[in-house]
Amino acid sequence: MDFTKISDKLIPANYLKLAVESQRPKEIRIKELLEKRKLPEDGWSDDLIELVVQQLSALDSNNFSHNVGLGEREARIVCDLVAKRHYSLGHGIGRSGDLLEAQPKAVGSSILGQLTNALLLDLIHCMGIQSCKSCFLVPMATGMTLTLCFLSLRKLRPKGKYILWSRIDQKSCFKSMTTAGFTPIVINTQRKDNEDGLSTNLHEFETRIGELNNEEILCIMSTTSCFAPRNCDDIIKLAEMAKHHNLPHIVNNAYGLQSTYICHQLQQGQRTGRIDLIVQSTDKNLLVPVGGAIVAGFDEAMVHNVAKSYAGRASASQSLDVFMTLLSLGKHGYLQLCKDRKQHFNELKENLETLAKKYNCKLLETKGNPISLALCFDGLSVDQPTKLGSMLYTRGVSGTRVVAPGPTKTIDGYEFKNWGTHEDLERSPYLTAAASIGITSKDINVFIKKLTELLETLKGDK
Amino acid sequence: MDFTKISDKLIPANYLKLAVESQRPKEIRIKELLEKRKLPEDGWSDDLIELVVQQLSALDSNNFSHNVGLGEREARIVCDLVAKRHYSLGHGIGRSGDLLEAQPKAVGSSILGQLTNALLLDLIHCMGIQSCKSCFLVPMATGMTLTLCFLSLRKLRPKGKYILWSRIDQKSCFKSMTTAGFTPIVINTQRKDNEDGLSTNLHEFETRIGELNNEEILCIMSTTSCFAPRNCDDIIKLAEMAKHHNLPHIVNNAYGLQSTYICHQLQQGQRTGRIDLIVQSTDKNLLVPVGGAIVAGFDEAMVHNVAKSYAGRASASQSLDVFMTLLSLGKHGYLQLCKDRKQHFNELKENLETLAKKYNCKLLETKGNPISLALCFDGLSVDQPTKLGSMLYTRGVSGTRVVAPGPTKTIDGYEFKNWGTHEDLERSPYLTAAASIGITSKDINVFIKKLTELLETLKGDK
Amino acid sequence: MDFTKISDKLIPANYLKLAVESQRPKEIRIKELLEKRKLPEDGWSDDLIELVVQQLSALDSNNFSHNVGLGEREARIVCDLVAKRHYSLGHGIGRSGDLLEAQPKAVGSSILGQLTNALLLDLIHCMGIQSCKSCFLVPMATGMTLTLCFLSLRKLRPKGKYILWSRIDQKSCFKSMTTAGFTPIVINTQRKDNEDGLSTNLHEFETRIGELNNEEILCIMSTTSCFAPRNCDDIIKLAEMAKHHNLPHIVNNAYGLQSTYICHQLQQGQRTGRIDLIVQSTDKNLLVPVGGAIVAGFDEAMVHNVAKSYAGRASASQSLDVFMTLLSLGKHGYLQLCKDRKQHFNELKENLETLAKKYNCKLLETKGNPISLALCFDGLSVDQPTKLGSMLYTRGVSGTRVVAPGPTKTIDGYEFKNWGTHEDLERSPYLTAAASIGITSKDINVFIKKLTELLETLKGDK
Amino acid sequence: MDFTKISDKLIPANYLKLAVESQRPKEIRIKELLEKRKLPEDGWSDDLIELVVQQLSALDSNNFSHNVGLGEREARIVCDLVAKRHYSLGHGIGRSGDLLEAQPKAVGSSILGQLTNALLLDLIHCMGIQSCKSCFLVPMATGMTLTLCFLSLRKLRPKGKYILWSRIDQKSCFKSMTTAGFTPIVINTQRKDNEDGLSTNLHEFETRIGELNNEEILCIMSTTSCFAPRNCDDIIKLAEMAKHHNLPHIVNNAYGLQSTYICHQLQQGQRTGRIDLIVQSTDKNLLVPVGGAIVAGFDEAMVHNVAKSYAGRASASQSLDVFMTLLSLGKHGYLQLCKDRKQHFNELKENLETLAKKYNCKLLETKGNPISLALCFDGLSVDQPTKLGSMLYTRGVSGTRVVAPGPTKTIDGYEFKNWGTHEDLERSPYLTAAASIGITSKDINVFIKKLTELLETLKGDK
Repeated sequence: MDFTKISDKLIPANYLKLAVESQRPKEIRIKELLEKRKLPEDGWSDDLIELVVQQLSALDSNNFSHNVGLGEREARIVCDLVAKRHYSLGHGIGRSGDLLEAQPKAVGSSILGQLTNALLLDLIHCMGIQSCKSCFLVPMATGMTLTLCFLSLRKLRPKGKYILWSRIDQKSCFKSMTTAGFTPIVINTQRKDNEDGLSTNLHEFETRIGELNNEEILCIMSTTSCFAPRNCDDIIKLAEMAKHHNLPHIVNNAYGLQSTYICHQLQQGQRTGRIDLIVQSTDKNLLVPVGGAIVAGFDEAMVHNVAKSYAGRASASQSLDVFMTLLSLGKHGYLQLCKDRKQHFNELKENLETLAKKYNCKLLETKGNPISLALCFDGLSVDQPTKLGSMLYTRGVSGTRVVAPGPTKTIDGYEFKNWGTHEDLERSPYLTAAASIGITSKDINVFIKKLTELLETLKGDK
Repeated sequence: MDFTKISDKLIPANYLKLAVESQRPKEIRIKELLEKRKLPEDGWSDDLIELVVQQLSALDSNNFSHNVGLGEREARIVCDLVAKRHYSLGHGIGRSGDLLEAQPKAVGSSILGQLTNALLLDLIHCMGIQSCKSCFLVPMATGMTLTLCFLSLRKLRPKGKYILWSRIDQKSCFKSMTTAGFTPIVINTQRKDNEDGLSTNLHEFETRIGELNNEEILCIMSTTSCFAPRNCDDIIKLAEMAKHHNLPHIVNNAYGLQSTYICHQLQQGQRTGRIDLIVQSTDKNLLVPVGGAIVAGFDEAMVHNVAKSYAGRASASQSLDVFMTLLSLGKHGYLQLCKDRKQHFNELKENLETLAKKYNCKLLETKGNPISLALCFDGLSVDQPTKLGSMLYTRGVSGTRVVAPGPTKTIDGYEFKNWGTHEDLERSPYLTAAASIGITSKDINVFIKKLTELLETLKGDK
Repeated sequence: MDFTKISDKLIPANYLKLAVESQRPKEIRIKELLEKRKLPEDGWSDDLIELVVQQLSALDSNNFSHNVGLGEREARIVCDLVAKRHYSLGHGIGRSGDLLEAQPKAVGSSILGQLTNALLLDLIHCMGIQSCKSCFLVPMATGMTLTLCFLSLRKLRPKGKYILWSRIDQKSCFKSMTTAGFTPIVINTQRKDNEDGLSTNLHEFETRIGELNNEEILCIMSTTSCFAPRNCDDIIKLAEMAKHHNLPHIVNNAYGLQSTYICHQLQQGQRTGRIDLIVQSTDKNLLVPVGGAIVAGFDEAMVHNVAKSYAGRASASQSLDVFMTLLSLGKHGYLQLCKDRKQHFNELKENLETLAKKYNCKLLETKGNPISLALCFDGLSVDQPTKLGSMLYTRGVSGTRVVAPGPTKTIDGYEFKNWGTHEDLERSPYLTAAASIGITSKDINVFIKKLTELLETLKGDK
Repeated sequence: MDFTKISDKLIPANYLKLAVESQRPKEIRIKELLEKRKLPEDGWSDDLIELVVQQLSALDSNNFSHNVGLGEREARIVCDLVAKRHYSLGHGIGRSGDLLEAQPKAVGSSILGQLTNALLLDLIHCMGIQSCKSCFLVPMATGMTLTLCFLSLRKLRPKGKYILWSRIDQKSCFKSMTTAGFTPIVINTQRKDNEDGLSTNLHEFETRIGELNNEEILCIMSTTSCFAPRNCDDIIKLAEMAKHHNLPHIVNNAYGLQSTYICHQLQQGQRTGRIDLIVQSTDKNLLVPVGGAIVAGFDEAMVHNVAKSYAGRASASQSLDVFMTLLSLGKHGYLQLCKDRKQHFNELKENLETLAKKYNCKLLETKGNPISLALCFDGLSVDQPTKLGSMLYTRGVSGTRVVAPGPTKTIDGYEFKNWGTHEDLERSPYLTAAASIGITSKDINVFIKKLTELLETLKGDK
């Protein structure tokens, strides 16, 4: 708005002058965002965020006052509530089966999409993966996004049939391979030197690579973030193996972006070995609603190849969530959340150790897992652990899991012994609990209090 | 809220009684929605829609006041603006790689997802596909959803390699097959008996089916809605062929749900032949932002099989948009929009016919296309049509396209002669214009006015 | 936002150019509003209205990012919901006891206030009071605003004690005089020549003026809009009388601004006589929530004198409502509403006439009342009319009143015979119904239907 | 919403059960609010607040789906943005010239108004005025509300002409008396025993009361919160004097409710003397936008008498702001804000003392002022202080004032020597700064930093 010609019947000129000058810092912030395409150092106010979103939305043709629409898709939004929640952004992102292509009809949405990707790249760098070259947001689940990555790899390795996969008992991770039509080669985890934690069976990887025809191997898939006692895969060694055998390497980094420890592994893995694509969830790392994933990589063409495999135009809603969240937090805000999380992880660990001592349980040693912890119950009777799990939930504790070795589970024709434990070996039932981004001391305190109460009760029950 | 115990210091009891009774109609509407799971006859007010969404959101565990979260995904939403636009719904829909499974942690989101699917099924029935048994919303583009359908079919036809496809020059439609890793068998359209419109080459379909090994054919893919002069595929005959040869038949019904004509073809096709899955876009049919598709089918297991192929948990944002839109319109509201569209299509057609006469163009006869029209320019010089297209756009007319036969285009290794025309034969350049749902008389009048002006100008230029 | 330096990594320059150009019409509308300070011809979109409000809000010092506050009033808004609903406008309007003075700390609020007053002045002109020179919105009820006008008159007529008042049985109108501390001289209405309607007793006015000491008369107060069968006061004659006797004349125009008939009286009254101030309600004329009134007049100093009597700084919330409403409607929108109202008034009248014939009632002839109608029941038994009134209300009809001559009512020490009827004479009970701005055909149809049903029932009861 | 009959096609019954149970705490909070009518201990979430407001709004007849309106005021809100910001509450509060009367047509608004008043009464008790019996919110400025109080007193003291007023140089405070038509008797403040602070001249009060005819004195008006070096009036002694002489005593407590010190004076004053009405601003004490005041008193009838003097129906917007704010803060939240303020006041004081020492200024000793401080400049040249004031403002510091003894100012015919200083005596120019509710350490630090910089600069200038 240009206030320079306002009549002094509306406002004395000297009052106005100062008020107009006071708008400068805001204008500078917007200018810097558009020019530098980096995370702002400090978070923005809600008003400023909405202003930018509204201005971008105004650049989409469905919001031009003089626009008439004679196409099959004109981004008409018939329900006001829906238009409102999307700031009248209707055209989505991408075009003609390339998620990164700009739409002439939707300039604002296109900028929003690209800017979000640029901010995400900056964030990935800040978290420690400095060599990352390119990334983009896909409005699909992490699992489906892994599927898309595998499908896009087929163009490069047309004979690829097999995916070598370090076992993690998470259903959609497994399905990401079968849905894409590939054959998973399951490599069970191992307990190295009688450690508590489960680690990557590198030896078995080597063996299987040796057995298979190289060009029939589509890629290696490893996983970073997971439930204890499984540790983060040995990314560095797997990356070196991938480089040595000239095999693509895709990392399921579902909620690993929040951990500098994991990001460091990825950066190192790429430095000394080979990592092609890293896929992470937006909701788990960026505290937005479920629905998006980020594909990142160290080679722009490789990343773009995935974007070009998405058939159709995609929702801009997830980009909008991430865009607003990143501006709202700023770089400092996000890094602070990560720092807080790490501290809360230690808090949770200490509390569980104390509790373990008191109730004859054991907090498993899992140094390779910076987010999740497992508390093993030796002393409980057969069905008590499961009971404990459900009692926690009815008392308002969500997210913990009780895992007990049990019968075999079959998914898409593949059998998994002791599903949920990531291994064929057995151990006593255990409870997992995670300190993920956004957790508070209150969460931990209430959890420990409720768990203590329940263990007291169960003690009495025996 | 229970007002029965309110002190009369706040309000006299008799005033209150009448006001409380006046809430009944609203309560009945909500009750009916939950019990009948059908579209309401008449649209709801925004307030009532928001009330239901808020009440559902309150059932998700992240919104319980006493909840503490110890998992890796706790639907924490850090940015208030984002929480607000999603009504604090954070958990998405689906679970463990099944989009239709309920989440214990997210009861509200689960109900929202299922209810939306139920309303969509009712809508499909209302539009004329009464035999449809099941449907669900996928928060992905139509193209990617077709990809998902193909991938899910592989489980049923593991040797399937080929997709028999009636050519339509729409890139993401083609990519839906190549991304899924299948080999498209392109069947060019034909001009039957020198008609203007392009129709399905049934003969060629038969020939190709005869040549191929049946179990290597994954399916037939046909398309309903498309740019004129291509007509809707001959769904009924293709369905009969599919039944005869025992082949799955998937229909790309991108924006066909808005047309009772097309829906009728689909209902008939299934009655006398075989249709397995119908995929349509939410934005193009339901006037919501880009981002979702609906998979519908005549066999519950077949449809569910697709839902089970989505690896991971998906965004609930698209379901929310559709839910709010359908409640806002109600059955009558939606049917009225469809009726209006049909009338506007006739209006557009008549206007273009009049204009064609005046400017020596020809409005192509395309009876099999109830949405799009093509105006053929014989009299214009070589580059004028393209110029016309871009001039229309700079004058605020979006969605029209000028198509001219031209050089061959290659997509994922496949060559298409005269890309954009859906055929190998050539004809004069033409302009397409569509009357899609939500179009207004103003859209048509302004378009005709601008087009007339431009044709006048071009006439002068020659 | 300045998009000129955006990298083409975000968007191709040619796409951007067209989108930026498309913002021009919007910029022009804003520019014209600020420069011309007139109602826009056509209504604005919600997005554009919010944009202007947000930009104004940004000019208030509490919204400067660098502002620190060391005063006793810093417009800090602690509750986000409250900040949101006021667009972070916190400083109110006016300063140091002058509602029209600009605040250096609140440039945006000041502009908003002045601009609203300017648009209101334009509206008053459009409705037919072309000679109106000045007006402003007061965030108080019409009654309290009349009180303020009387109090401000005291400065000009320090010996003023009496207000000559043409009786209207509306409590807060009467209280506006007693609260201000003046003595009302009640002039009963009269039925001229056995007409149905009640008109101003001009003769009695003259008599009373003759009896009193001129300088002890503060002013004459007349009323335009009222319940039938009272008619609009004879404004023109009263104005002439006021001019003749050199007395101030204040008009209670509560909901008369919506009527061109009434506005015409006011314009004429001023032309040939004297009207000092006209007070009207914002909610009743402008379809905003209750809470504001407009003081208008034909002499800028006189109007400003009222503004200077408001002790303190006032709420900007009412100005905001009116500002947004006027932009949303535009001049055409408002005039259309007035035209529709007039037509609905005729519709209501015809329906009631038909009904009157059928049920032996009489629709009173009240040509001087363009908004309200009275249906007189001769044939009903004693308590039936009252019963009818309450039955209508429980059936969802609000706003009608059943009036029956009855016992005397005392307000602030003054006795009124037949309170509610505006006169000392008696007549049969009657029902009033008004066609006020915003009424729809549905309102009228349902009302007539319910009334018919009830009259049928009552007929049976007798 | 009643979920008990939901089909398990929408959600498994056991999932639903737990989710429904989790709604209980919320339901209890609402129930308690309505039954106890007290501030909640802890603040409510925005969602819960909006839920209650929406449910109340639904009780107003304009929001009944079946309502038809035939009155002159039907709370139709034509602009969606306006309806939205008022949650469709349109009918305002009060009726027929009594702000506390319930409206049959607007049950929700009526409850909202009464509930807000009940919460305010609880707040007043919490702040230390335990004997307060009744209070209500008036949607007018503090000054206009004082006017209303004076006007309402006239009914009790019809011969009342004079208001004995302890001078405070705040224009709207003075205007509150003249607008009401009374004659202020100005009692200048005094510097007792050469103290820095200005205190109530009790002796002069006694003298004047002795001189006047008791029944011609309308009341005594005292002021609590004010700019240093004026102190809070000696409320206790004035109250005793009022009791002794049987005179009403009205307290202008503009921003005193936030201070337990001042509230204690009021409670004590009433205990040993007489206080009739206390008027405080909502914006200054409750951090809402400008526009409302609270009238409180120790006798229900006296307070109600004021409510009955408001001619007309009033805006509910201010009640809504206060209602939402009080629920959002809860009792603890508000008390914490007051505690923080007190601490920040000490912080400000210490910082100014340190600065005073360094720059040869003097922080005036004003023990009777718990909110505002005055820094006296002896060493600056004539126009430097004023320059300093404006420089602070252009540097983003709002709310400080530079006061210098100067020429006489005339308001409504009354002359004030040294306007702004509250006294006839002179002293060096000084700067006032206040630590009012909501102030932060950042505010103080930036202010001290800027002030230091400016004093450095001015030092150089000399």
